[in-house]
Amino acid sequence: MNREFLKANFKILDDIKTDKQKGLPAPPFIKEYDEKKDLIELPSVKKEDIIKYNIYDCLNDRRSVRKYSEEYITLNELSYLLWSTQEIQSINKYTKTAFRRVPSGGASHPFETYLIINRVENLEDGIYRYLPLEHKLMYMYKLEDAKRKIDEATPKQPFVPNFVSKSAVIFAWSCIPYRAEHKFDVTAHKKILIDVGHVCQNLYISSESIECGTCAIGIYDQVLVDKMLGLDGENEFIIYMAALGKKIE
Amino acid sequence: MNREFLKANFKILDDIKTDKQKGLPAPPFIKEYDEKKDLIELPSVKKEDIIKYNIYDCLNDRRSVRKYSEEYITLNELSYLLWSTQEIQSINKYTKTAFRRVPSGGASHPFETYLIINRVENLEDGIYRYLPLEHKLMYMYKLEDAKRKIDEATPKQPFVPNFVSKSAVIFAWSCIPYRAEHKFDVTAHKKILIDVGHVCQNLYISSESIECGTCAIGIYDQVLVDKMLGLDGENEFIIYMAALGKKIE
Repeated sequence: MNREFLKANFKILDDIKTDKQKGLPAPPFIKEYDEKKDLIELPSVKKEDIIKYNIYDCLNDRRSVRKYSEEYITLNELSYLLWSTQEIQSINKYTKTAFRRVPSGGASHPFETYLIINRVENLEDGIYRYLPLEHKLMYMYKLEDAKRKIDEATPKQPFVPNFVSKSAVIFAWSCIPYRAEHKFDVTAHKKILIDVGHVCQNLYISSESIECGTCAIGIYDQVLVDKMLGLDGENEFIIYMAALGKKIE
Repeated sequence: MNREFLKANFKILDDIKTDKQKGLPAPPFIKEYDEKKDLIELPSVKKEDIIKYNIYDCLNDRRSVRKYSEEYITLNELSYLLWSTQEIQSINKYTKTAFRRVPSGGASHPFETYLIINRVENLEDGIYRYLPLEHKLMYMYKLEDAKRKIDEATPKQPFVPNFVSKSAVIFAWSCIPYRAEHKFDVTAHKKILIDVGHVCQNLYISSESIECGTCAIGIYDQVLVDKMLGLDGENEFIIYMAALGKKIE
Protein backbone atom coordinates (compact mmCIF):
# COMPACT_ATOMS: atom_id res chain seq x y z
CA MET A 1 0.00 0.00 0.00
CA ASN A 2 2.84 2.33 0.92
CA ARG A 3 4.24 1.77 -2.54
CA GLU A 4 1.49 3.99 -3.93
CA PHE A 5 3.03 6.79 -1.96
CA LEU A 6 6.21 6.54 -4.03
CA LYS A 7 4.40 7.18 -7.28
CA ALA A 8 3.72 10.41 -9.16
CA ASN A 9 0.10 10.80 -8.14
CA PHE A 10 -0.15 14.24 -9.62
CA LYS A 11 -3.50 13.59 -11.32
CA ILE A 12 -5.15 13.78 -7.91
CA LEU A 13 -4.59 17.52 -8.20
CA ASP A 14 -7.05 17.65 -11.10
CA ASP A 15 -9.83 16.59 -8.74
CA ILE A 16 -9.10 18.67 -5.69
CA LYS A 17 -8.38 22.30 -5.05
CA THR A 18 -5.19 23.03 -3.18
CA ASP A 19 -5.19 25.74 -0.53
CA LYS A 20 -3.23 27.88 -2.95
CA GLN A 21 -5.92 27.44 -5.60
CA LYS A 22 -8.57 28.30 -3.02
CA GLY A 23 -6.76 31.60 -2.54
CA LEU A 24 -5.63 30.85 1.00
CA PRO A 25 -2.53 32.80 1.98
CA ALA A 26 0.85 31.12 1.67
CA PRO A 27 2.54 30.35 4.98
CA PRO A 28 5.75 32.22 5.84
CA PHE A 29 8.64 30.75 3.83
CA ILE A 30 10.84 30.70 6.93
CA LYS A 31 9.96 30.26 10.57
CA GLU A 32 9.71 33.45 12.57
CA TYR A 33 11.97 34.11 15.52
CA ASP A 34 12.14 36.44 18.46
CA GLU A 35 14.15 39.35 17.09
CA LYS A 36 15.09 40.51 20.56
CA LYS A 37 17.23 37.41 20.99
CA ASP A 38 20.98 37.71 20.62
CA LEU A 39 22.12 36.10 17.42
CA ILE A 40 25.49 34.57 16.67
CA GLU A 41 27.22 35.72 13.51
CA LEU A 42 28.61 33.02 11.26
CA PRO A 43 31.84 33.80 9.42
CA SER A 44 31.42 34.27 5.69
CA VAL A 45 32.34 31.24 3.63
CA LYS A 46 35.65 31.47 1.76
CA LYS A 47 36.43 29.29 -1.20
CA GLU A 48 40.11 29.16 -0.27
CA ASP A 49 39.33 27.65 3.15
CA ILE A 50 38.14 24.41 1.57
CA ILE A 51 41.05 22.00 1.79
CA LYS A 52 39.85 19.12 -0.32
CA TYR A 53 38.22 21.22 -2.96
CA ASN A 54 38.22 18.91 -5.98
CA ILE A 55 34.72 17.66 -6.57
CA TYR A 56 36.02 14.36 -7.92
CA ASP A 57 37.58 13.53 -4.57
CA CYS A 58 34.58 14.69 -2.58
CA LEU A 59 32.17 12.57 -4.60
CA ASN A 60 34.51 9.60 -4.73
CA ASP A 61 35.55 9.47 -1.09
CA ARG A 62 32.17 10.06 0.52
CA ARG A 63 31.28 7.43 3.10
CA SER A 64 28.91 7.24 6.04
CA VAL A 65 31.29 7.93 8.92
CA ARG A 66 30.25 6.85 12.43
CA LYS A 67 33.50 7.37 14.32
CA TYR A 68 34.77 10.84 15.10
CA SER A 69 37.87 12.29 16.69
CA GLU A 70 37.70 14.36 19.87
CA GLU A 71 38.67 17.41 17.85
CA TYR A 72 36.41 20.46 17.76
CA ILE A 73 35.04 21.72 14.48
CA THR A 74 35.53 25.42 13.82
CA LEU A 75 32.88 28.04 13.38
CA ASN A 76 34.16 28.53 9.83
CA GLU A 77 33.51 24.88 9.10
CA LEU A 78 30.05 24.93 10.62
CA SER A 79 29.25 28.07 8.65
CA TYR A 80 30.24 26.33 5.41
CA LEU A 81 28.11 23.26 6.17
CA LEU A 82 25.06 25.44 6.79
CA TRP A 83 25.84 27.51 3.69
CA SER A 84 25.93 24.33 1.63
CA THR A 85 22.77 22.76 2.98
CA GLN A 86 20.23 25.51 3.65
CA GLU A 87 21.44 29.11 3.35
CA ILE A 88 19.09 31.32 1.33
CA GLN A 89 21.06 32.83 -1.54
CA SER A 90 18.39 35.12 -2.91
CA ILE A 91 14.66 35.77 -2.88
CA ASN A 92 12.46 36.55 -5.82
CA LYS A 93 10.84 39.73 -4.61
CA TYR A 94 7.60 39.16 -6.52
CA THR A 95 6.92 35.51 -5.73
CA LYS A 96 8.82 35.51 -2.40
CA THR A 97 10.51 32.36 -3.63
CA ALA A 98 13.78 31.58 -1.88
CA PHE A 99 16.74 30.04 -3.68
CA ARG A 100 19.06 27.76 -1.79
CA ARG A 101 21.94 25.50 -2.83
CA VAL A 102 19.52 22.56 -2.94
CA PRO A 103 16.40 22.28 -5.07
CA SER A 104 12.94 21.88 -3.57
CA GLY A 105 9.70 21.01 -5.34
CA GLY A 106 7.80 24.24 -6.06
CA ALA A 107 10.65 26.02 -4.20
CA SER A 108 8.70 25.36 -1.01
CA HIS A 109 11.79 24.48 1.08
CA PRO A 110 9.74 23.12 3.98
CA PHE A 111 12.70 22.64 6.36
CA GLU A 112 14.29 24.30 9.35
CA THR A 113 17.73 23.35 10.65
CA TYR A 114 18.42 22.69 14.33
CA LEU A 115 21.85 21.88 15.69
CA ILE A 116 22.71 19.90 18.77
CA ILE A 117 26.20 21.16 19.46
CA ASN A 118 28.78 19.23 21.40
CA ARG A 119 32.21 20.25 20.07
CA VAL A 120 32.25 23.48 18.07
CA GLU A 121 34.91 26.10 18.81
CA ASN A 122 33.60 29.21 20.53
CA LEU A 123 30.08 27.85 20.91
CA GLU A 124 28.58 26.66 24.15
CA ASP A 125 27.09 23.18 24.04
CA GLY A 126 23.37 23.14 23.51
CA ILE A 127 20.54 23.44 21.04
CA TYR A 128 20.68 26.06 18.32
CA ARG A 129 18.51 27.08 15.43
CA TYR A 130 19.93 28.19 12.08
CA LEU A 131 18.50 31.31 10.49
CA PRO A 132 18.98 30.71 6.76
CA LEU A 133 18.21 34.24 5.59
CA GLU A 134 20.48 35.98 8.08
CA HIS A 135 23.05 33.14 8.02
CA LYS A 136 23.19 33.34 11.80
CA LEU A 137 22.63 31.03 14.72
CA MET A 138 20.13 31.46 17.49
CA TYR A 139 21.03 29.83 20.81
CA MET A 140 17.93 28.10 22.18
CA TYR A 141 18.94 26.33 25.39
CA LYS A 142 21.36 24.00 27.05
CA LEU A 143 20.48 20.32 26.85
CA GLU A 144 20.86 18.92 30.36
CA ASP A 145 22.12 15.35 30.55
CA ALA A 146 22.76 15.55 26.81
CA LYS A 147 24.53 12.23 26.18
CA ARG A 148 21.80 10.16 27.82
CA LYS A 149 19.00 12.04 26.07
CA ILE A 150 20.66 11.73 22.66
CA ASP A 151 21.34 8.03 23.17
CA GLU A 152 17.73 7.43 24.14
CA ALA A 153 16.43 9.40 21.17
CA THR A 154 18.66 7.63 18.61
CA PRO A 155 18.56 3.98 19.63
CA LYS A 156 19.39 0.89 17.56
CA GLN A 157 22.02 2.46 15.32
CA PRO A 158 23.78 -0.13 13.18
CA PHE A 159 27.54 -0.88 13.44
CA VAL A 160 28.48 1.69 16.11
CA PRO A 161 26.02 1.89 19.02
CA ASN A 162 25.45 5.38 20.41
CA PHE A 163 27.69 7.01 17.80
CA VAL A 164 25.32 9.97 17.51
CA SER A 165 26.03 11.33 20.98
CA LYS A 166 29.77 11.14 20.29
CA SER A 167 29.63 13.46 17.28
CA ALA A 168 30.72 17.10 17.31
CA VAL A 169 27.40 18.37 16.03
CA ILE A 170 24.07 16.85 15.08
CA PHE A 171 22.09 18.38 12.24
CA ALA A 172 18.36 17.89 12.80
CA TRP A 173 16.13 18.98 9.92
CA SER A 174 12.56 19.67 10.83
CA CYS A 175 9.73 19.73 8.38
CA ILE A 176 6.93 22.31 8.35
CA PRO A 177 4.69 20.34 5.99
CA TYR A 178 2.19 23.09 5.31
CA ARG A 179 4.78 25.05 3.34
CA ALA A 180 4.55 22.33 0.69
CA GLU A 181 0.93 21.25 1.31
CA HIS A 182 -0.32 24.75 0.54
CA LYS A 183 0.69 24.22 -3.07
CA PHE A 184 0.73 20.43 -3.45
CA ASP A 185 -1.85 19.15 -0.94
CA VAL A 186 -1.67 15.35 -0.60
CA THR A 187 1.04 15.15 -3.25
CA ALA A 188 3.41 17.26 -1.11
CA HIS A 189 4.81 14.47 1.02
CA LYS A 190 6.69 12.54 -1.62
CA LYS A 191 8.42 15.76 -2.64
CA ILE A 192 9.29 16.67 0.95
CA LEU A 193 11.15 13.41 1.52
CA ILE A 194 13.06 13.64 -1.73
CA ASP A 195 13.96 17.24 -0.93
CA VAL A 196 15.47 16.42 2.44
CA GLY A 197 17.59 13.84 0.63
CA HIS A 198 18.96 16.66 -1.55
CA VAL A 199 19.86 18.58 1.60
CA CYS A 200 21.63 15.70 3.28
CA GLN A 201 23.66 14.80 0.22
CA ASN A 202 25.07 18.33 0.19
CA LEU A 203 26.05 17.81 3.82
CA TYR A 204 27.85 14.59 2.89
CA ILE A 205 29.78 16.21 0.09
CA SER A 206 30.67 19.43 1.85
CA SER A 207 31.73 17.63 5.01
CA GLU A 208 33.99 15.40 2.93
CA SER A 209 35.60 18.53 1.50
CA ILE A 210 36.66 19.74 4.96
CA GLU A 211 37.76 16.35 6.22
CA CYS A 212 34.76 15.84 8.42
CA GLY A 213 32.73 12.68 8.39
CA THR A 214 28.97 12.47 8.58
CA CYS A 215 26.30 9.82 8.83
CA ALA A 216 22.61 10.29 8.15
CA ILE A 217 20.24 9.06 10.83
CA GLY A 218 16.97 7.58 9.67
CA ILE A 219 16.26 5.67 12.88
CA TYR A 220 15.28 7.94 15.75
CA ASP A 221 12.54 8.25 18.33
CA GLN A 222 10.19 10.81 16.86
CA VAL A 223 8.61 11.84 20.17
CA LEU A 224 11.86 12.17 22.10
CA VAL A 225 13.64 14.06 19.32
CA ASP A 226 10.79 16.51 18.79
CA LYS A 227 10.59 17.07 22.53
CA MET A 228 14.35 17.65 22.75
CA LEU A 229 14.07 20.39 20.15
CA GLY A 230 10.84 21.92 21.41
CA LEU A 231 8.74 21.03 18.33
CA ASP A 232 5.03 20.29 18.46
CA GLY A 233 5.34 17.07 16.44
CA GLU A 234 2.44 17.95 14.20
CA ASN A 235 2.95 21.26 12.39
CA GLU A 236 6.69 20.91 12.75
CA PHE A 237 8.67 17.77 13.46
CA ILE A 238 12.07 16.29 12.74
CA ILE A 239 12.21 14.47 9.43
CA TYR A 240 15.92 13.53 9.11
CA MET A 241 19.14 13.96 11.01
CA ALA A 242 22.89 13.58 10.53
CA ALA A 243 25.76 13.32 12.98
CA LEU A 244 29.06 14.93 12.06
CA GLY A 245 32.57 15.26 13.41
CA LYS A 246 36.23 15.42 12.48
CA LYS A 247 37.45 12.18 10.97
CA ILE A 248 39.89 10.05 12.88
CA GLU A 249 43.25 10.32 11.05
CA MET B 1 -2.69 11.68 7.34
CA ASN B 2 0.22 11.63 4.92
CA ARG B 3 2.24 13.53 7.47
CA GLU B 4 2.57 10.36 9.50
CA PHE B 5 4.48 8.93 6.62
CA LEU B 6 7.20 11.52 7.09
CA LYS B 7 7.91 10.45 10.64
CA ALA B 8 10.40 7.95 12.04
CA ASN B 9 7.94 5.14 12.65
CA PHE B 10 10.67 2.67 13.44
CA LYS B 11 8.91 1.29 16.53
CA ILE B 12 6.51 -0.51 14.21
CA LEU B 13 9.40 -2.88 13.57
CA ASP B 14 9.22 -4.05 17.19
CA ASP B 15 5.76 -5.47 16.51
CA ILE B 16 6.22 -7.09 13.13
CA LYS B 17 8.73 -9.43 11.61
CA THR B 18 10.38 -8.24 8.44
CA ASP B 19 10.98 -10.71 5.64
CA LYS B 20 14.65 -10.60 6.55
CA GLN B 21 13.86 -11.56 10.14
CA LYS B 22 11.62 -14.35 8.87
CA GLY B 23 14.67 -15.71 7.08
CA LEU B 24 13.35 -15.05 3.60
CA PRO B 25 16.13 -14.66 1.03
CA ALA B 26 17.29 -11.16 0.13
CA PRO B 27 16.40 -10.08 -3.41
CA PRO B 28 19.24 -9.53 -5.88
CA PHE B 29 20.96 -6.22 -5.12
CA ILE B 30 20.95 -5.30 -8.80
CA LYS B 31 18.54 -6.19 -11.56
CA GLU B 32 19.55 -9.06 -13.76
CA TYR B 33 20.10 -8.60 -17.47
CA ASP B 34 20.44 -10.72 -20.55
CA GLU B 35 24.18 -11.35 -20.73
CA LYS B 36 24.00 -12.20 -24.41
CA LYS B 37 23.16 -8.59 -25.19
CA ASP B 38 25.85 -6.32 -26.54
CA LEU B 39 26.93 -3.85 -23.93
CA ILE B 40 28.36 -0.40 -24.47
CA GLU B 41 31.57 0.41 -22.63
CA LEU B 42 31.67 3.70 -20.79
CA PRO B 43 35.01 5.54 -20.71
CA SER B 44 36.69 5.57 -17.31
CA VAL B 45 36.20 8.78 -15.38
CA LYS B 46 39.23 11.05 -15.21
CA LYS B 47 39.60 13.69 -12.56
CA GLU B 48 41.40 16.02 -14.96
CA ASP B 49 38.44 16.03 -17.37
CA ILE B 50 36.29 17.94 -14.90
CA ILE B 51 36.47 21.57 -15.94
CA LYS B 52 34.76 23.30 -13.05
CA TYR B 53 36.27 21.16 -10.37
CA ASN B 54 36.08 23.40 -7.32
CA ILE B 55 33.33 22.16 -5.05
CA TYR B 56 32.60 25.68 -3.84
CA ASP B 57 31.58 26.73 -7.33
CA CYS B 58 29.58 23.59 -7.99
CA LEU B 59 27.58 23.95 -4.78
CA ASN B 60 27.19 27.68 -5.16
CA ASP B 61 26.15 27.83 -8.80
CA ARG B 62 23.72 24.92 -8.85
CA ARG B 63 20.34 25.85 -10.29
CA SER B 64 17.45 23.97 -11.84
CA VAL B 65 18.12 24.48 -15.53
CA ARG B 66 15.24 24.01 -17.97
CA LYS B 67 16.80 25.39 -21.17
CA TYR B 68 19.48 23.50 -23.01
CA SER B 69 21.67 24.15 -26.02
CA GLU B 70 21.53 21.95 -29.11
CA GLU B 71 25.01 20.66 -28.29
CA TYR B 72 25.60 16.96 -27.74
CA ILE B 73 27.00 15.70 -24.48
CA THR B 74 29.97 13.39 -24.75
CA LEU B 75 30.22 9.79 -23.64
CA ASN B 76 32.87 10.90 -21.15
CA GLU B 77 30.42 13.30 -19.61
CA LEU B 78 27.62 10.76 -19.44
CA SER B 79 30.01 8.26 -17.89
CA TYR B 80 30.92 10.75 -15.18
CA LEU B 81 27.27 11.52 -14.38
CA LEU B 82 26.50 7.83 -13.97
CA TRP B 83 29.69 7.32 -11.94
CA SER B 84 28.59 10.10 -9.62
CA THR B 85 25.00 8.99 -9.13
CA GLN B 86 24.90 5.19 -9.11
CA GLU B 87 28.12 3.35 -9.99
CA ILE B 88 28.97 0.55 -7.57
CA GLN B 89 32.41 1.20 -6.16
CA SER B 90 32.81 -1.99 -4.17
CA ILE B 91 30.90 -4.89 -2.70
CA ASN B 92 31.32 -6.39 0.73
CA LYS B 93 31.82 -10.02 -0.18
CA TYR B 94 30.24 -11.36 3.01
CA THR B 95 27.13 -9.21 3.24
CA LYS B 96 26.86 -8.57 -0.52
CA THR B 97 26.42 -4.91 0.36
CA ALA B 98 27.20 -2.53 -2.48
CA PHE B 99 28.84 0.85 -1.89
CA ARG B 100 27.99 3.71 -4.19
CA ARG B 101 28.77 7.43 -4.13
CA VAL B 102 25.42 8.07 -2.47
CA PRO B 103 24.22 6.64 0.83
CA SER B 104 21.14 4.43 1.08
CA GLY B 105 19.33 3.29 4.23
CA GLY B 106 20.55 -0.21 5.11
CA ALA B 107 22.66 -0.02 1.92
CA SER B 108 19.62 -1.34 0.08
CA HIS B 109 20.06 0.94 -2.97
CA PRO B 110 16.65 0.12 -4.41
CA PHE B 111 17.16 1.97 -7.70
CA GLU B 112 17.92 1.25 -11.33
CA THR B 113 18.89 3.96 -13.82
CA TYR B 114 17.28 4.25 -17.25
CA LEU B 115 18.31 6.84 -19.81
CA ILE B 116 16.23 8.34 -22.56
CA ILE B 117 18.92 9.53 -24.91
CA ASN B 118 18.44 12.30 -27.42
CA ARG B 119 21.83 13.99 -27.91
CA VAL B 120 24.82 11.96 -26.73
CA GLU B 121 27.85 11.60 -28.99
CA ASN B 122 28.27 8.15 -30.48
CA LEU B 123 25.04 6.83 -29.05
CA GLU B 124 21.90 6.17 -31.05
CA ASP B 125 18.78 7.82 -29.68
CA GLY B 126 16.66 5.55 -27.59
CA ILE B 127 16.17 3.91 -24.25
CA TYR B 128 19.14 2.54 -22.34
CA ARG B 129 19.70 0.86 -19.02
CA TYR B 130 22.76 1.54 -16.89
CA LEU B 131 24.58 -1.44 -15.40
CA PRO B 132 26.12 -0.03 -12.22
CA LEU B 133 28.44 -2.93 -11.45
CA GLU B 134 29.91 -3.19 -14.95
CA HIS B 135 29.70 0.59 -15.52
CA LYS B 136 28.26 -0.13 -18.95
CA LEU B 137 25.14 0.72 -20.88
CA MET B 138 22.64 -1.69 -22.33
CA TYR B 139 20.70 -0.49 -25.34
CA MET B 140 17.06 -1.44 -24.92
CA TYR B 141 15.14 -0.02 -27.88
CA LYS B 142 14.41 2.97 -29.99
CA LEU B 143 11.57 5.18 -28.78
CA GLU B 144 9.36 5.83 -31.82
CA ASP B 145 7.76 9.26 -31.92
CA ALA B 146 9.92 10.19 -28.95
CA LYS B 147 9.15 13.89 -28.57
CA ARG B 148 5.38 13.38 -28.45
CA LYS B 149 5.63 10.50 -26.02
CA ILE B 150 7.95 12.38 -23.68
CA ASP B 151 5.75 15.49 -23.79
CA GLU B 152 2.69 13.43 -22.96
CA ALA B 153 4.45 11.64 -20.13
CA THR B 154 5.81 14.83 -18.54
CA PRO B 155 2.93 17.31 -18.75
CA LYS B 156 2.37 20.48 -16.74
CA GLN B 157 6.01 21.43 -16.19
CA PRO B 158 6.37 24.86 -14.61
CA PHE B 159 8.11 27.80 -16.36
CA VAL B 160 9.19 26.04 -19.57
CA PRO B 161 6.52 23.79 -21.11
CA ASN B 162 7.82 20.59 -22.68
CA PHE B 163 11.41 21.28 -21.66
CA VAL B 164 11.97 17.61 -20.87
CA SER B 165 11.79 16.45 -24.48
CA LYS B 166 14.30 19.13 -25.46
CA SER B 167 17.01 17.85 -23.15
CA ALA B 168 20.05 15.85 -24.29
CA VAL B 169 19.36 12.98 -21.92
CA ILE B 170 16.71 12.10 -19.37
CA PHE B 171 17.69 10.20 -16.26
CA ALA B 172 14.81 8.04 -15.04
CA TRP B 173 15.37 6.30 -11.73
CA SER B 174 13.20 3.31 -11.06
CA CYS B 175 12.55 1.85 -7.69
CA ILE B 176 12.46 -1.85 -6.90
CA PRO B 177 10.82 -1.45 -3.50
CA TYR B 178 11.32 -4.99 -2.27
CA ARG B 179 15.08 -4.41 -2.00
CA ALA B 180 14.34 -2.07 0.90
CA GLU B 181 11.10 -3.71 2.11
CA HIS B 182 12.91 -7.00 2.73
CA LYS B 183 14.78 -5.32 5.58
CA PHE B 184 12.52 -2.42 6.54
CA ASP B 185 8.98 -3.58 5.67
CA VAL B 186 6.49 -0.70 5.95
CA THR B 187 9.20 1.67 7.14
CA ALA B 188 11.13 1.27 3.87
CA HIS B 189 9.27 3.86 1.86
CA LYS B 190 10.33 6.97 3.71
CA LYS B 191 13.95 5.86 3.30
CA ILE B 192 13.51 5.14 -0.40
CA LEU B 193 12.32 8.66 -1.16
CA ILE B 194 15.09 10.30 0.84
CA ASP B 195 17.62 8.07 -0.89
CA VAL B 196 16.56 9.07 -4.38
CA GLY B 197 17.01 12.68 -3.26
CA HIS B 198 20.64 11.85 -2.43
CA VAL B 199 21.08 10.46 -5.93
CA CYS B 200 19.58 13.45 -7.69
CA GLN B 201 21.60 15.95 -5.70
CA ASN B 202 24.79 14.26 -6.92
CA LEU B 203 23.48 14.65 -10.46
CA TYR B 204 22.91 18.35 -9.86
CA ILE B 205 26.41 18.90 -8.50
CA SER B 206 28.27 16.78 -11.00
CA SER B 207 26.39 18.25 -13.95
CA GLU B 208 27.27 21.73 -12.71
CA SER B 209 30.93 20.69 -12.71
CA ILE B 210 30.87 19.87 -16.42
CA GLU B 211 28.80 22.88 -17.44
CA CYS B 212 25.64 20.95 -17.97
CA GLY B 213 22.34 21.98 -16.51
CA THR B 214 19.77 19.68 -15.01
CA CYS B 215 16.27 19.87 -13.60
CA ALA B 216 14.57 17.26 -11.46
CA ILE B 217 11.11 16.16 -12.59
CA GLY B 218 8.61 15.35 -9.88
CA ILE B 219 5.55 15.74 -12.09
CA TYR B 220 5.15 12.92 -14.58
CA ASP B 221 2.51 10.47 -15.71
CA GLN B 222 3.34 7.30 -13.84
CA VAL B 223 1.58 4.94 -16.23
CA LEU B 224 2.98 6.46 -19.43
CA VAL B 225 6.53 6.70 -18.09
CA ASP B 226 6.56 3.13 -16.79
CA LYS B 227 5.18 1.93 -20.10
CA MET B 228 7.81 3.89 -22.04
CA LEU B 229 10.54 2.13 -20.09
CA GLY B 230 8.95 -1.31 -20.06
CA LEU B 231 8.41 -1.48 -16.28
CA ASP B 232 5.55 -3.37 -14.64
CA GLY B 233 4.55 -0.42 -12.43
CA GLU B 234 4.28 -2.55 -9.33
CA ASN B 235 7.52 -4.37 -8.54
CA GLU B 236 9.49 -1.76 -10.44
CA PHE B 237 8.39 1.74 -11.37
CA ILE B 238 9.86 5.16 -11.96
CA ILE B 239 10.21 7.19 -8.79
CA TYR B 240 12.06 10.34 -9.95
CA MET B 241 13.53 11.78 -13.13
CA ALA B 242 15.83 14.57 -14.27
CA ALA B 243 16.38 16.21 -17.65
CA LEU B 244 19.91 17.29 -18.54
CA GLY B 245 21.72 19.09 -21.31
CA LYS B 246 24.51 21.49 -22.12
CA LYS B 247 23.85 24.95 -20.76
CA ILE B 248 23.16 27.78 -23.16
CA GLU B 249 26.20 30.08 -23.05
